[in-house]
Amino acid sequence: MHLELGDNQYGKAETRLVRVDRAGEAHRVTDLTVTTTLAGDLAATHLTGDNSGVLPTDTQKNTVYAFARDGVGQVEAFALRLARHFVGSAPTITRARVAVEQHLWDRNPANGHSFVRAAGTRTATAVSAEGGEWVLSGVTDLTVLNTTGSEFHGFHRDRFTTLAETTDRVLATAVTARWRHRDTERTDWKTAFSGARQRLLTAFADTHSLSLQQTLHAMGTQVLEGDEHLAEIRLSLPNKHHFLVDLSPFELDNPGEVFYAADRPYGLIEGTVLRDDAPDPGLAWW
Amino acid sequence: MHLELGDNQYGKAETRLVRVDRAGEAHRVTDLTVTTTLAGDLAATHLTGDNSGVLPTDTQKNTVYAFARDGVGQVEAFALRLARHFVGSAPTITRARVAVEQHLWDRNPANGHSFVRAAGTRTATAVSAEGGEWVLSGVTDLTVLNTTGSEFHGFHRDRFTTLAETTDRVLATAVTARWRHRDTERTDWKTAFSGARQRLLTAFADTHSLSLQQTLHAMGTQVLEGDEHLAEIRLSLPNKHHFLVDLSPFELDNPGEVFYAADRPYGLIEGTVLRDDAPDPGLAWW
Amino acid sequence: MHLELGDNQYGKAETRLVRVDRAGEAHRVTDLTVTTTLAGDLAATHLTGDNSGVLPTDTQKNTVYAFARDGVGQVEAFALRLARHFVGSAPTITRARVAVEQHLWDRNPANGHSFVRAAGTRTATAVSAEGGEWVLSGVTDLTVLNTTGSEFHGFHRDRFTTLAETTDRVLATAVTARWRHRDTERTDWKTAFSGARQRLLTAFADTHSLSLQQTLHAMGTQVLEGDEHLAEIRLSLPNKHHFLVDLSPFELDNPGEVFYAADRPYGLIEGTVLRDDAPDPGLAWW
Amino acid sequence: MHLELGDNQYGKAETRLVRVDRAGEAHRVTDLTVTTTLAGDLAATHLTGDNSGVLPTDTQKNTVYAFARDGVGQVEAFALRLARHFVGSAPTITRARVAVEQHLWDRNPANGHSFVRAAGTRTATAVSAEGGEWVLSGVTDLTVLNTTGSEFHGFHRDRFTTLAETTDRVLATAVTARWRHRDTERTDWKTAFSGARQRLLTAFADTHSLSLQQTLHAMGTQVLEGDEHLAEIRLSLPNKHHFLVDLSPFELDNPGEVFYAADRPYGLIEGTVLRDDAPDPGLAWW
Repeated sequence: MHLELGDNQYGKAETRLVRVDRAGEAHRVTDLTVTTTLAGDLAATHLTGDNSGVLPTDTQKNTVYAFARDGVGQVEAFALRLARHFVGSAPTITRARVAVEQHLWDRNPANGHSFVRAAGTRTATAVSAEGGEWVLSGVTDLTVLNTTGSEFHGFHRDRFTTLAETTDRVLATAVTARWRHRDTERTDWKTAFSGARQRLLTAFADTHSLSLQQTLHAMGTQVLEGDEHLAEIRLSLPNKHHFLVDLSPFELDNPGEVFYAADRPYGLIEGTVLRDDAPDPGLAWW
Repeated sequence: MHLELGDNQYGKAETRLVRVDRAGEAHRVTDLTVTTTLAGDLAATHLTGDNSGVLPTDTQKNTVYAFARDGVGQVEAFALRLARHFVGSAPTITRARVAVEQHLWDRNPANGHSFVRAAGTRTATAVSAEGGEWVLSGVTDLTVLNTTGSEFHGFHRDRFTTLAETTDRVLATAVTARWRHRDTERTDWKTAFSGARQRLLTAFADTHSLSLQQTLHAMGTQVLEGDEHLAEIRLSLPNKHHFLVDLSPFELDNPGEVFYAADRPYGLIEGTVLRDDAPDPGLAWW
Repeated sequence: MHLELGDNQYGKAETRLVRVDRAGEAHRVTDLTVTTTLAGDLAATHLTGDNSGVLPTDTQKNTVYAFARDGVGQVEAFALRLARHFVGSAPTITRARVAVEQHLWDRNPANGHSFVRAAGTRTATAVSAEGGEWVLSGVTDLTVLNTTGSEFHGFHRDRFTTLAETTDRVLATAVTARWRHRDTERTDWKTAFSGARQRLLTAFADTHSLSLQQTLHAMGTQVLEGDEHLAEIRLSLPNKHHFLVDLSPFELDNPGEVFYAADRPYGLIEGTVLRDDAPDPGLAWW
Repeated sequence: MHLELGDNQYGKAETRLVRVDRAGEAHRVTDLTVTTTLAGDLAATHLTGDNSGVLPTDTQKNTVYAFARDGVGQVEAFALRLARHFVGSAPTITRARVAVEQHLWDRNPANGHSFVRAAGTRTATAVSAEGGEWVLSGVTDLTVLNTTGSEFHGFHRDRFTTLAETTDRVLATAVTARWRHRDTERTDWKTAFSGARQRLLTAFADTHSLSLQQTLHAMGTQVLEGDEHLAEIRLSLPNKHHFLVDLSPFELDNPGEVFYAADRPYGLIEGTVLRDDAPDPGLAWW
C-alpha cells in the first residue's frame, strides 16, 4: 500500500473588481466578485514544494484586474476570456474555471454617475480545458414569495409525521439557479440572462404549486423552453418556511394573515431539468 | 463601599413577523423584524430572582404577533402602538422601545400575490415613557455609489500620512440614517418616509463632494429642509473604499476604470444635523 | 429656524493587525481588529469641504501599524497609547477613542511558532480627551451554557402570556461585557483581564438562577468584588433559548434531554453593576 | 426534443439539536446542526405535484429529534443510524445522506453542568443507499497559523506576476477536511477523530512549507498514515494572507513583525490524498 495524490486544484477566491465605464453620457458600473480555479499536473508542488509549475494566486488576481482594463462586457464573456487565458498560462495548467458573481446596481435618475445597489446577484461560470469549454449563467439570492397559490398535502406519512396538510400556504424561496449553454458561441448573453431571470420569476409566480418540487420543475422547464440554446438548468431552492402563528390563546383567529418567518431549519429542494438532446456536460459543472 | 444595580433593560430581539393583507385585488406583504425593549424598576429580579414584575420576553413576542392581527399599517404607527402598550403592561415597566426593520418587497407584475425581495431596509423606532413619546424613522443598508464628483485633498498631514490627494474618486457608502419627528402626531408616515429616502439619494448623487462629511451634511440638510416635521437626523456612513488598481506593472494605464473594492478597514463617518428649534430629544435615541 | 451641525465623529473601522513577537524561544502572536474614532471641531469639512482639520482615516490606519512596531503589549495599554496620540494630532481633534478586539490563539504544543485559534474575544477601549482619559476592558462572544440550575417562574402574566413556568431549564448566553477601570494608571492589565473573565465564568456556572437578570447581576457583582480597581461593569446577555422538543407524538418522553436551539427571536438582558463610590464615567462609554 | 427531469434531491437543512446527557455525575452536551438529504424516484412530485412518495422535510426534522431520544453517541454513528432509517422510509427513497456539524464545548471546571463554547467544528457525513453505505469524518473552521517555517518562491512567472519571492512568511489557514473510512464497521469513532485532528495540527505545525500545497499534502498523508482504516482525505485550505506592512514611509523597519491580515481575496488550495488500495468511493462524497 502507498499513498497517492488525488484530485487537486487551486486558485484565487473572491477578487473584488469594480469596473467603471466612462464613455458615453452616462457612466456604467460593473461590480464583480471573481474566483479563479486552476488544475493540471501540480504534483511537484504537493510532493516536494517545487513551485515551478505554479502560477501564483496573486498573479491570477492581477490578471483579473488587467483583463478588466480592456472592458468587462457581459460576465459570461469575461469569465470565458479569463478561463481561456489561464489554460497553458503555466505549462502544468490544463484546466481553468472562472466563476463570477455580478452585484447589481440601479441607476439613480438624478444624474448619469450615481447608482443604488439592487437586490439579487447574477452569476456566470466558464470552464476551459483541453477537451472543450463550457459556460453557465445563473442567479443567486433572488428571493421571491407567493402569498397564495401553494398547497402541500397527500405526502407520505410515517411514525414521525406531524405536519398538517394545507391547501393554502405562503411559499417563499431564495433562488439559486445555473443554466448551461449548448456551446460558448452565443453573443446575446445579456438578453439571454434577462429572459431566463424573467422566466424564473414568472414561473414562480404563475405556477399553482402542489409542492416546491413542482414549482422548481416549472421554473426549470420554462427557462429551457424559452431559449433553445440552453441545454440544462440546475436549481437549489431553500423553502423559507412561513408558519401561521397560533393566536387562539389570545382569542384571535388568524385567517392566513400573521406569520412567523423561520430561519432554521429549512427545507432544501434541488433539481435539474435538461433536454434529451443536451450535449454531454463535460466539465461544465466542475 | 457597596455595589449598586445601574441602568438595565430587557426585551425580545429580532421577532420575525410577516403580515399578509388579502383584502383588495392585490395582496400586500409587510415583512418585519421587531425588537422590543422594556425598562423600569427591575431590581427585584436582578437581586433576588423575584420575577413578579417581569413581563416575559416570550409574552412580548406574543404581543407583537397579536397586535399584527389588527393590521400593521405603517411601521412607525405599529411601533408606537406596541410601545404604548408595554408601558404599564407590568406595574414595574415605565419605559418601552420598539425597533422595527422592514424588509422591502417589490411586486412581481405577473399577478397580485407574488413578490420579489428588494434591496435596502426601512426602519422605525418608537419610545414611550412616562415623560413623553418619540418616533424615529430611517433606512439601513441603502448602498449608493458615485463614479465621479468626489474629491479628497487639503487634509491635515502628519508623520504617518501617505494618502495621495485626489480630485476624482469613486465614492460609495451604505447609508444608515435615522431621523426624529417633532412629535408623534403625524399620520403621513408613508409619504414622509418616501420623501426622506428620495432626498437622501438625490443629495448623495448631486453633491459635489470634497469629503464624505460634506456629503453627509448635505444629505442631512436636505432631509430636514424637505420636511418641517423633522427635528433631527443622524447618519452613519461607512466609506466603502474603491482603490484604483495599479496596472503599470503590466504596461497598462488605468484612467479611473479598474478598482479594487475593499472590505476592511473602512472609514466610518457619523454626524448629526438638527434644527435650532428642535424639541428636546428626551428618550428618542435611547 | 436654521439647521445646525450636531454631534459628529469619524475614524477608521476594523483595521486588522497581527503582531508577531519573535524574541525568546517561543514566538507570540497578537491578533487585533482596531477601530479608531476622532472628534473635535470638524465643522469646516462638513459645511464647506475644507479638510485642513481632518486627519485622514488612512493616516489613522497607518498610525495603528506604526505604533505596533514598538510592540503591542496588553491591549488596554496599546489602545490608550494610540488614543493619547490622536488627541491633538490635528489642531481640531480634541477627543479620540480606540477600540480593540483581540482574537485569541492557543499554542500548538508541537513547537514554539504554531498556533490554533481559540474561541471568544478580548476587548479594550480607551478614550482620551481634554478632560481626562478612561479605559474599559471586556469580552465578547464568550458563549456559555448550564444544563441545570436555572429556573424561571413567578413572572407577571397578562392576556398575551402563554409561557410555561419551569424549575429546570437549559440556560445559555453569549457574554458581551465591558468593565470600567477606576483610572488608567494600573499596569496589571493581563492579570486583571484573566481574573475578570474567570469570575464571569464561575459566577455564571455557580449561580443558581431564577432569571437571567439574576445571573447577570451575580456575574457583574463578582467581577467588581474581585478587583477593587474596577468601578463599573455593563453586561449584555442574549438568552440563547433551548426549547425542549415535544416527543409525545412519537410516544416518547423527553426528560430534559432533547432540545431545539433557536436562533431568533432571543431574549436580550442588559444591565449594569457599579460601586457607589465609582468616579464619574465621563466619556468612558462614548 | 423534449425536457427531462434530471438529478434531484431534497431534505431538511440545519436542524439544530442539543442533547443533554444527565446520567453520571457530570452532564454531557452534544450540540449539533443536522442536514438530511433524500433521493430516489421523486418524479411524481416534480411533474404533477403528487406527493405520495415524499417524506416531508418536517418529518425528517422530527426524526432527528426522535432518534436523539435514544442518545446521540458519536456523530458518525448517529448520522449512519439516521441515514439507514431514511432509505425506504417512503417507497420512493433509495438514498439518504445525513451531514452533521458538531459544535464543541469545553467543561467549565466550576461544576459538572456548566460549559464554555470552544473553537472549531467536528463534522460527520453518512450516506446510505441500496448499493452500500459510507461514512466521512472531518473538521471545519479549524484555524491555524505558523509564524515561521513557510517559504514561497520559484513559482512560474508571466506578464502579470508581481509577487515577491519569500523565504519566510506567516502561513495561516482555516482547515476544512473530510476523511473517508474504509467501511462503516468501526466503533472507535471518537479516538479516530481525535487522532486525525491531532495529526492535522501536528503536520501543519511541523511541515517546513515551500507551498501551502506541500503542507496540505503532508497533512493528508499523516492523517492516512496514522489510521489504516482511512481510505482517503480531502482538504480545502484557504490561504489567509498576512501581508507585511511597509513601514518605511515612517522611517521604520519591519523585520517580520507587523502584518495586515487580509479578508479577500484569498488563495484557496484544495487537494486529495488517498491509498492506492482504497475501496471505490461509491456515493461517499455525494
